[in-house]
Amino acid sequence: MIATPDYRALLATAVAEARQGLAEGGIPIGAALFHDDGRLLGCGHNRRIQENDPSVHGETDAFRKAGRQRRYRDTIMVTTLAPCWYCSGLVRQFNIGTVVVGESVNFSGGVDWLREAGVKVIDLADQECIEMLGGYIAANPDVWNEDIGED
Amino acid sequence: MIATPDYRALLATAVAEARQGLAEGGIPIGAALFHDDGRLLGCGHNRRIQENDPSVHGETDAFRKAGRQRRYRDTIMVTTLAPCWYCSGLVRQFNIGTVVVGESVNFSGGVDWLREAGVKVIDLADQECIEMLGGYIAANPDVWNEDIGED
Repeated sequence: MIATPDYRALLATAVAEARQGLAEGGIPIGAALFHDDGRLLGCGHNRRIQENDPSVHGETDAFRKAGRQRRYRDTIMVTTLAPCWYCSGLVRQFNIGTVVVGESVNFSGGVDWLREAGVKVIDLADQECIEMLGGYIAANPDVWNEDIGED
Repeated sequence: MIATPDYRALLATAVAEARQGLAEGGIPIGAALFHDDGRLLGCGHNRRIQENDPSVHGETDAFRKAGRQRRYRDTIMVTTLAPCWYCSGLVRQFNIGTVVVGESVNFSGGVDWLREAGVKVIDLADQECIEMLGGYIAANPDVWNEDIGED
């Protein structure tokens, strides 16, 4: 890594994915996996609703789209929302070095756990991310609770 | 739940999935999600090799195949191998009540973390599971290290 990446520029890709999800009628959470040299490896968004598939979170979709990588230490997972336990576990298992979250207001997930495990976590507290998901949750509380495993 | 499920009978489904994976040339780890009344909700196996997809672990595949469920508290995730962080995170996020592992000798994963979080974990220390995966790891160390995120 030559210079500190422009994290807000990377977040724009995840936000574009979240917007696409919202336009499809889905939960607006997007993510993107970058190499820390700036290359986009894969991006995706939550598709619980669109594909009736509870396993497709933004982060798992981006990870999948990136295909097999030899190592993840030098990669950055950028996501519009703090990762849940499922996605935090993904980050930890594959030793993804850095996580950039758009916001952790609507859901704080496993960010403290990741920090304790040595993952670099950057929270951008982005207003658009907060409002886009916050509006969705207010309008669709049942879908949201299902997505985070609440009865 | 009327009676304690026959965990070894449930494990047989996960083992059949692991054998299928091995027959396909893949990593032999299988899993199955059951309701605790005995109904099979979904089953699957690791397909890193077969589909070049690092996101398909046995547990995530079984979870996906089960489709959307209203709640997971009364479900049992049965897997031939102790779940990694990624799959342990899945269990915790969706509040899966019970995890049955075929073995934790080749890899112990997040079983202690899950127990601390209140998940019921049963380790069957199954000899066939230990030998099937142990033999695969000895013959394919690079694939195995890639699958558990080791450089």
